[in-house]
Amino acid sequence: MVTETQMKFAMEQYIKGFNQKDADLLISLFADEAKIEDPVGGGRFVEGKAAITDFYQQAVTMVDKLELVAPVRGSHGNSAAMAFRIYMELEGKKITIDCIDVMTFNDEGKIADMKAYHGPRGMTDL
Amino acid sequence: MVTETQMKFAMEQYIKGFNQKDADLLISLFADEAKIEDPVGGGRFVEGKAAITDFYQQAVTMVDKLELVAPVRGSHGNSAAMAFRIYMELEGKKITIDCIDVMTFNDEGKIADMKAYHGPRGMTDL
Repeated sequence: MVTETQMKFAMEQYIKGFNQKDADLLISLFADEAKIEDPVGGGRFVEGKAAITDFYQQAVTMVDKLELVAPVRGSHGNSAAMAFRIYMELEGKKITIDCIDVMTFNDEGKIADMKAYHGPRGMTDL
Repeated sequence: MVTETQMKFAMEQYIKGFNQKDADLLISLFADEAKIEDPVGGGRFVEGKAAITDFYQQAVTMVDKLELVAPVRGSHGNSAAMAFRIYMELEGKKITIDCIDVMTFNDEGKIADMKAYHGPRGMTDL
């Protein structure tokens, strides 16, 4: 099984991938059959390596910065969670989004499932 | 459906319930058939109002303080997440635990499911 240290490292790499606009790094963190729900309840699901590749190649062009607001939380199982703030441009406006991602990992330490919790009221114009 | 504002308010009440050692307030936030996994992967499940009542009556005696580290995150659905630090006493030692709770609400705005993400490496002696 994946260790807490491996999960935390992968999630810190996720933050780094955005901050370095390195889509390849982000994509490499995911399992081939991974599934993303972002935002939770928003009806957008991204499934499989091809769709995830498209998703992050576009995402790095929109996001200026990801800022972790507290240490990544592990668990006693194969999932972990982190709270962060996204600085990005959306429809020509600079905004921030307050987000928590919950990631579930496979035995190889790759992200198999990611859920992003952020809502309309967590969005602020800069 | 529950609104983002209702979810955030309930989760802020959850923090307040611990800080005021008010087990009744905490218990009142949960649906009768609610289910808690705390910590995720740890094999401890608390199900139903009677078990939840016992759980929080004991928990308030152990926890000194809960400190929200960032605004509660909503979603576009019926779940929300928050990152916080627990200050508590465990086996005679003062410790902190870094935690993220993900809560899913029913249509009446009560917590139907709660998952607490914290791991062995998120625990620190004070």
